[in-house]
Amino acid sequence: MTLKLLLVAAVIAAAPAQAEPAAQEKAAILAEYIDLLAIPNVATNVSDIRRNADHIMAMMTRRGLAPRLLEGDNANVPPAIYGEWPVPGAKKTLVLYAHYDGQPVTPEDWKSTQTFEPKYYTDRLDRGGKQIAVPAAGRPIDPEWRIYARSASDDKLGVMAILKAVDTLKAQGKRPAYNLKVFFEGEEEQGSPNLAALLAKHQDTLKSDGWVIFDGPSHPSGAPQVSLGVRGDINVDVTVHGPTRPLHSGHYGNWVPNPAMVLSQLLASMKDKDGRVTVAGWYDDVVPLTEAEQAAIRAVPAADAQLKSELGLGWTEGNGISLLDAIQQPSLNINGIRAADVGDKARNVIPISAAAALDLRLVKGNDSKRQVEKLIRHIQAQGFLVLDREPTMAERQGNPRIATVIVGPGYNAERTALDNPLAQSVAAAMKPYGAVVLPSLGGSLPLYLFRETLGAPTVSVSLANHDNNQHAEDENLRIGNLWRAIDIAAAVMQAR
Amino acid sequence: MTLKLLLVAAVIAAAPAQAEPAAQEKAAILAEYIDLLAIPNVATNVSDIRRNADHIMAMMTRRGLAPRLLEGDNANVPPAIYGEWPVPGAKKTLVLYAHYDGQPVTPEDWKSTQTFEPKYYTDRLDRGGKQIAVPAAGRPIDPEWRIYARSASDDKLGVMAILKAVDTLKAQGKRPAYNLKVFFEGEEEQGSPNLAALLAKHQDTLKSDGWVIFDGPSHPSGAPQVSLGVRGDINVDVTVHGPTRPLHSGHYGNWVPNPAMVLSQLLASMKDKDGRVTVAGWYDDVVPLTEAEQAAIRAVPAADAQLKSELGLGWTEGNGISLLDAIQQPSLNINGIRAADVGDKARNVIPISAAAALDLRLVKGNDSKRQVEKLIRHIQAQGFLVLDREPTMAERQGNPRIATVIVGPGYNAERTALDNPLAQSVAAAMKPYGAVVLPSLGGSLPLYLFRETLGAPTVSVSLANHDNNQHAEDENLRIGNLWRAIDIAAAVMQAR
Repeated sequence: MTLKLLLVAAVIAAAPAQAEPAAQEKAAILAEYIDLLAIPNVATNVSDIRRNADHIMAMMTRRGLAPRLLEGDNANVPPAIYGEWPVPGAKKTLVLYAHYDGQPVTPEDWKSTQTFEPKYYTDRLDRGGKQIAVPAAGRPIDPEWRIYARSASDDKLGVMAILKAVDTLKAQGKRPAYNLKVFFEGEEEQGSPNLAALLAKHQDTLKSDGWVIFDGPSHPSGAPQVSLGVRGDINVDVTVHGPTRPLHSGHYGNWVPNPAMVLSQLLASMKDKDGRVTVAGWYDDVVPLTEAEQAAIRAVPAADAQLKSELGLGWTEGNGISLLDAIQQPSLNINGIRAADVGDKARNVIPISAAAALDLRLVKGNDSKRQVEKLIRHIQAQGFLVLDREPTMAERQGNPRIATVIVGPGYNAERTALDNPLAQSVAAAMKPYGAVVLPSLGGSLPLYLFRETLGAPTVSVSLANHDNNQHAEDENLRIGNLWRAIDIAAAVMQAR
Repeated sequence: MTLKLLLVAAVIAAAPAQAEPAAQEKAAILAEYIDLLAIPNVATNVSDIRRNADHIMAMMTRRGLAPRLLEGDNANVPPAIYGEWPVPGAKKTLVLYAHYDGQPVTPEDWKSTQTFEPKYYTDRLDRGGKQIAVPAAGRPIDPEWRIYARSASDDKLGVMAILKAVDTLKAQGKRPAYNLKVFFEGEEEQGSPNLAALLAKHQDTLKSDGWVIFDGPSHPSGAPQVSLGVRGDINVDVTVHGPTRPLHSGHYGNWVPNPAMVLSQLLASMKDKDGRVTVAGWYDDVVPLTEAEQAAIRAVPAADAQLKSELGLGWTEGNGISLLDAIQQPSLNINGIRAADVGDKARNVIPISAAAALDLRLVKGNDSKRQVEKLIRHIQAQGFLVLDREPTMAERQGNPRIATVIVGPGYNAERTALDNPLAQSVAAAMKPYGAVVLPSLGGSLPLYLFRETLGAPTVSVSLANHDNNQHAEDENLRIGNLWRAIDIAAAVMQAR
């Protein structure tokens, strides 16, 4: 452990005695959480999403939050769930946000459990965690235990922390320092394509002085994070076309062009060996950090060496810059790539196409549409005809290289100033927990919409364990992080 | 249609009136073939393979071929099926070869049918072919109809053609011109890892003056092919390693290296934009074609323009050289590539690994092991630590780039001289069918083993329709090609 990490550990140790729930209460909290995690929540399945919404509404009704659905333009739009705890005499109104939908799942890749059958493990799987039974009421519960299930960390944790913090305050006879509103989104992991319209439609209901976003992981040191911004995000699917039918690689190999090779060459052209994006103008438009923001970054304990070690990294992109500096820049990431099959299913063929799923992260100054245009111009500059559909036979015959480029929904970055009153108030409430303050998370949320549509500033609070396998197989939550998240949510509700 | 193609069509039209079966007989042949195709035959499933073997043995017993299994070293080796038709007084012995195993299948990619539930279609699917019922006995059967099923062309067609040709001769009261032996292999599509040992073990049984290999597609003009050689083949799986757990692409993107990008850059380094392999020494070792072989290639009608048009190709590899010239060179093909997921299943992650399945085709002079060594040296020269297993944590931490390279079973190319007596005899027997003669097919079979182990020359006869989707989804056989294959097998049996 480095000196800096020791200092962080000391800060965490100095945190106030957390209002950790009593043993009896813990089992009840976990039972309620497991029930929520057991409902599949991939946002493309709207009937699943509505089952989640019904379930969460019932949880909110039990807590007197008068929940209702904020519907979009039609029944296929995943609804947001709204609730409130009015506080007579409160001068300000705060909206607490979490999202109840989750990333898509590939069950065959999960080693821990079925994706929506939450299970307890004694530790992280790759450290030898063993599955254990559901803890009985009153039995000791180790904070190092983990719950494995999709959305355990991202982001039903946010929903659960907010609702249990309401219980905490009520049990202690306390009230929030604000008129409290709650907003649970249902399509965040799909890129929030309907959020702008939904916020606009319900803007009177959602009137506030600011939003606190409960989402994202803690700092690798374990410290909770307050972030004043997020990167923007836009997904781009690139498909390169080969022969119209799959061909025997012996009879046609080294004459019929192989789309997997063509795609590899195209992708390789997008980054240099150090990981710098070579698309022309990629780093233009970036609004530099202020001096105060740079100072905030320098104040965060460096976790790079720890991360490199635990992730088994022999190098990092960006010629040795730190993770925190790297995420202040726009990125180009390959989420996935596929042509035909590999391993046992591989056959000696020339595939008919090869596809890559890209995501572009954006920082303040980037415009999502403009960033995509740079990428498309780059693909064209590599000799490709770029289409937004399958090519016709005539287009195939007349063009050596064709890429179908499908641009998903996307949004820009957002950054609240460090001296914003809401930012300062949330940071102060979390200081006893050793929180670090970041100008921007590396991850994304459509926070610019809240400012653009509602004029409201946003501050993000990130509480899950950093090693939660968010977005991937074997997503999990360290149980100690649930107790702390509830505690911090209660502190934020009372922050002045 | 080009002039050359017209000439080929004229040659085909001039072929002898084929002994096409009577209508009543056709339905019976198809029924027997459908039963054979309905048995799954992926060679990794040895119990399926043995079910095929039992079924084929019964078909051979009905024809008096005294079948028996030639077993390998243990029960997990797919057995070969052996049978014979001794001809008293015959001076020479000929072995007819086909393989009864098939390539792996990905049923979800098949548009036509379940992979092992053969179905009839009126035409090729992409030309609007419609599924039709099983033809009733005595009803007309259009030769353009297709049977869709794995192995319909590759290579149960070979098995069926040989066995039906036996019926043809017996019905006509004729005998083969040779002592006839039949050898059906059960692991060809797995790279024949046990064939050398199996041939050596049964070398007395398999003594002969030569082998005729029934496998592969016709020329794109429709003409059957006689090939005096095949390329060698060896599969290489390359896996590039990323972080030890999947990571959120926002929180870690552009700092944690992405293995899909690293793999793309590695693959891109292996070929230039014209498709020429850039691995050092790749084209060394190649034994040039003789003048006679070059002349044979020039005599084959060019099908390049037809293929480019029907496959929708805007360019071909090799700077404009013809397909027939291209396949006289060693190739490097990407059979498949995969990292995480694309399309609906894509998630915003940095994958933990990225894999490519490569196949290397070899020509006379190449040695499979030496060719793989060139590839490995190339990967090392790109800065990779190359392992034949997963890296340890220390290896990950200490090496920027690591590739796990798994080398599959492979074998060298084989080429019989044009003036070999067997070659001349088979070519003469097929001349009436408009056959083209090639020094080498682009595809592969372990034919060098027959010469090395048994001292026997080989000649290949390729009879399936060229657009059969061999090795891929929607494999199919044009029914007219079945009638012709039976006819040609009978002609080869009687060739002197």
